[in-house]
Amino acid sequence: MNKGRTEAFSDGVLAIIITIMVLELVVPEGHELADLFNDWPKLLAYVVSFLYVGLYWNNHHHMFQAVKRVSGAALWGNLHLLFWLSLLPWLTAWVGESHFAPTPISVYAFDLVMCGVAFTLLQRALIRADTSNTLLARAVQGGTKEKVSTALYIVAILLPLLGQTAAYAAGILLLGVGLSWVVPDPRIERVLAEAGGSGE
Amino acid sequence: MNKGRTEAFSDGVLAIIITIMVLELVVPEGHELADLFNDWPKLLAYVVSFLYVGLYWNNHHHMFQAVKRVSGAALWGNLHLLFWLSLLPWLTAWVGESHFAPTPISVYAFDLVMCGVAFTLLQRALIRADTSNTLLARAVQGGTKEKVSTALYIVAILLPLLGQTAAYAAGILLLGVGLSWVVPDPRIERVLAEAGGSGE
Amino acid sequence: MNKGRTEAFSDGVLAIIITIMVLELVVPEGHELADLFNDWPKLLAYVVSFLYVGLYWNNHHHMFQAVKRVSGAALWGNLHLLFWLSLLPWLTAWVGESHFAPTPISVYAFDLVMCGVAFTLLQRALIRADTSNTLLARAVQGGTKEKVSTALYIVAILLPLLGQTAAYAAGILLLGVGLSWVVPDPRIERVLAEAGGSGE
Amino acid sequence: MNKGRTEAFSDGVLAIIITIMVLELVVPEGHELADLFNDWPKLLAYVVSFLYVGLYWNNHHHMFQAVKRVSGAALWGNLHLLFWLSLLPWLTAWVGESHFAPTPISVYAFDLVMCGVAFTLLQRALIRADTSNTLLARAVQGGTKEKVSTALYIVAILLPLLGQTAAYAAGILLLGVGLSWVVPDPRIERVLAEAGGSGE
Repeated sequence: MNKGRTEAFSDGVLAIIITIMVLELVVPEGHELADLFNDWPKLLAYVVSFLYVGLYWNNHHHMFQAVKRVSGAALWGNLHLLFWLSLLPWLTAWVGESHFAPTPISVYAFDLVMCGVAFTLLQRALIRADTSNTLLARAVQGGTKEKVSTALYIVAILLPLLGQTAAYAAGILLLGVGLSWVVPDPRIERVLAEAGGSGE
Repeated sequence: MNKGRTEAFSDGVLAIIITIMVLELVVPEGHELADLFNDWPKLLAYVVSFLYVGLYWNNHHHMFQAVKRVSGAALWGNLHLLFWLSLLPWLTAWVGESHFAPTPISVYAFDLVMCGVAFTLLQRALIRADTSNTLLARAVQGGTKEKVSTALYIVAILLPLLGQTAAYAAGILLLGVGLSWVVPDPRIERVLAEAGGSGE
Repeated sequence: MNKGRTEAFSDGVLAIIITIMVLELVVPEGHELADLFNDWPKLLAYVVSFLYVGLYWNNHHHMFQAVKRVSGAALWGNLHLLFWLSLLPWLTAWVGESHFAPTPISVYAFDLVMCGVAFTLLQRALIRADTSNTLLARAVQGGTKEKVSTALYIVAILLPLLGQTAAYAAGILLLGVGLSWVVPDPRIERVLAEAGGSGE
Repeated sequence: MNKGRTEAFSDGVLAIIITIMVLELVVPEGHELADLFNDWPKLLAYVVSFLYVGLYWNNHHHMFQAVKRVSGAALWGNLHLLFWLSLLPWLTAWVGESHFAPTPISVYAFDLVMCGVAFTLLQRALIRADTSNTLLARAVQGGTKEKVSTALYIVAILLPLLGQTAAYAAGILLLGVGLSWVVPDPRIERVLAEAGGSGE
């Protein structure tokens, strides 16, 4: 199966996820600057979630460049990833409305773990879908950064159990892990460059 | 007529349907895990509907791979299918908010029957639209699984009339039928493989 | 300028317009079939607007098949059309909530006139954008049906001034005009067939 | 990296931004024409924001025509632009609900400055991403109009500090700057014409 429609559908879903989060931002009742920032936890949660959905779009884009064909299993792997990402707008609103309360931060971090797991499963399904194309398999060897990120997400799930201050630390940790992924996976670019062209 | 824009428009509509359902999930008022799962019927209804829209996207994708050209009738057949699918977010919210009450489940099952009917009508319109291309016609011969699914949907419409327990059974039945379609139609893949290439 | 992105952006906007209308359907409070149909005017208005947005997508699709290049003026002509179409979800909700009161129906009909005017302006901009391609210009010669439709829309704007019964008649008139356009413009298909291929 | 998916994702996000603003328009409670225009500040703010998002889509489209490849930095430059644009529906609702109060207009103008800054940063990232392609670099030399627009946006941020009448003037200024950009950047069209073809 050709990868074109899977990319188009994923682009659509990710575009909607990243955009509907703004619908959760309540229009301020007053007309002063202070009224705008009254709701700063929702604004901050919006920025962090925008970063994460942007990250996933970026990495999805990179991964699919090393891919030529998809399989039925990869289509479902992709839907599974989109499912966990689709919960982000709802959990973002919960984190924001609760002003970074411990449980919402733990649940948000849990959702990020599930997104990471789903991304890895999708990667494996894509590698199996086209064994003649070893670009992706070579590109993702190792994966130390994924393992460290997952460990840090799990820390961010557990930290809030220690109380509100630890919950804030968990929030900062999630922001930091996100920022560490802003530079897309260089391994894929390197392997693509060595192969003298993209999978497209 | 070229099939490209019909695929793109359908991808857009399906991406929006699958994503706006999350807007119906109310942000929990409390900040505990229990508050998150208070609304578990809405969450469960969300998961089932995500599965169904994913299924339709998957099968739509498969069917259009065996297609080269569309006709005016096929465009309307496609819009007809999207119409019934577009009601799913609204009915999902009703099923969830009613905590799986009998009538909402019957109506939800009825909508799934109409989606199935619309899919079959679209399939026929696509076969008639391009008689020189017999890939799809050969692929959908038989169709026992569709008939069994439709029969089970009709059971799921009627079961809730017997009371609340039967309504729960109908909900489980709908989930089961959905899961039975997770593996996309193998007939299309087989016919495409025999034909030595896809319709794209 | 290449037409690809203009088609993709229009597909996106039309897909969202046709889908977000379902967000205006309120989830019934009760759990009986009667509760579902309590709000039948909103449901009926949803069906009519789905039909109209579907029509515009269909005709947009047909028109762009006869087109190879777009100009800056055509891009704005397209945005102008999308603007009037984007008001449909809002006016649909007004018509539905008012249970087909006279003024909402007049305003809805006015918006349809503006959509028609915008479509004609876009057509002219596309013809001027590429004078070497006469497919579209030949296809839209005459245009009796457009003129009759516009006249009927104007009747539907004025009729509700006579009272509620006339407003219902205007609503039925709008549905009828919509249905008369379900078969897409055969002139474009004929001209494309004569030219031995599409503009794509 | 190929530019196709970046265009598709941007088209999706811009299509959603331009369309969800209509969700902020409240359905009038009464059924008379006066009820429709009661909320005229929201309607006017909707029209202005529709114009601005349309402008950005148009200029994004033009800029990417002179582009062949994107880099990781350009992907983030693009997400950064989409972030500031994604705040427009929320700020539009604030401006409208406050009936053009001073602070909301200042904040709206600030967001437009940030969109302009982000657009310029994206332009630079795209030029650096593909040094073998000098089309875009040649097309954007000079940039007097951008500088004048930015200066006028800054005036529109500061003017409302002088009171309500000055805030109305700032609103009119923003509308005027928007209208001055309706004709897309002729430099790109000229350079593309000289180069004898587009970057696509």
